[in-house]
Amino acid sequence: MVQTTDSVTRLVEEFAKLPGIGRKSAERLAYHILRVHESEALALSDAIRTVKQNVRYCSQCFNLAESELCSVCQDSRRDKTLLCIVEQPRDLMAIEQSGMYPGLYHVLLGRIAPLEGIGPDQLTIDALVDRVREGTFREIIMATNPTTEGDGTALHISNLLSELPVTLTRLARGITTGSILEFTNKEILADALSGRQKL
Amino acid sequence: MVQTTDSVTRLVEEFAKLPGIGRKSAERLAYHILRVHESEALALSDAIRTVKQNVRYCSQCFNLAESELCSVCQDSRRDKTLLCIVEQPRDLMAIEQSGMYPGLYHVLLGRIAPLEGIGPDQLTIDALVDRVREGTFREIIMATNPTTEGDGTALHISNLLSELPVTLTRLARGITTGSILEFTNKEILADALSGRQKL
Repeated sequence: MVQTTDSVTRLVEEFAKLPGIGRKSAERLAYHILRVHESEALALSDAIRTVKQNVRYCSQCFNLAESELCSVCQDSRRDKTLLCIVEQPRDLMAIEQSGMYPGLYHVLLGRIAPLEGIGPDQLTIDALVDRVREGTFREIIMATNPTTEGDGTALHISNLLSELPVTLTRLARGITTGSILEFTNKEILADALSGRQKL
Repeated sequence: MVQTTDSVTRLVEEFAKLPGIGRKSAERLAYHILRVHESEALALSDAIRTVKQNVRYCSQCFNLAESELCSVCQDSRRDKTLLCIVEQPRDLMAIEQSGMYPGLYHVLLGRIAPLEGIGPDQLTIDALVDRVREGTFREIIMATNPTTEGDGTALHISNLLSELPVTLTRLARGITTGSILEFTNKEILADALSGRQKL
């Protein structure tokens, strides 16, 4: 932007660094900030600062936390014999939102992606193996994403844990509720057939 | 978001207040902030704060400024006999980016929009009339948006200024460079015909 003020230019540049925000959107956001009441703009500014200063990873499961342990690990009502392995904190949130899972989690903070140079060492797999070795879990549910990399990560972890006395399961795959068979692809149908359940 | 930390929830809520940012995008942005280096997140936080604290309206033309006068009004090389009237600072930036306009501006900070309850009093029209009355301008170019409201605003202003010894013009209307006649609508063709220029 020509002839605008330095601070506006800087704000546009910072907004444009956000994912999914192009130059035009960044300008629109900057003008929005200029237009709104000071308290609203400062609320956003402070929220960003606070998150960066307060949020860290749970020392036990690597979920997002504002203290040593996250809210799930702190909750005494959770079933401590069940562990669900997810890639990211946002996967954990998605499962929590379903309200169907009573156990604990372990967040890998990524997935094994050789093409991006991400190996098992960059994930929280060592900490996971240590947790499982303690022997408190009876079942471990793999909830990595149903992608090549997610499946590969799950396979790697199941190999590591295969010696330990724990049941390994993974999320059911099949057709999705509300979908239409005709428009379902063959991989999904193959999953649905091979995993068919009793009525 | 269930079970996430309070600061993350707050950040998602603040992002979701921005125009064009829905709930899902706000969550994505919040996770981006969590992932990036602290310095990058704080740069955005500070840029928002700085803009709110430093940027105000130019006391002469109501463009965005970081001091009493904006960079255009401060520039001694500008033609002080030419005035261009725009609705918003972003319109001014667009004209500046064309690099074709040597004069000064007056930013209305809106347009007359009776349906939204915006009348002439909420714009900077009084200040505009005072500026024009000083008699330094030989030409005033109306560059409000080519919409019903923009045209209405231009008409209102031209009525106010009609008594003063100054030439009023407006931006040329016609077909746009690069467009295809076949796909041009009849209003644009009518503008292009009535405003036809000598080759």
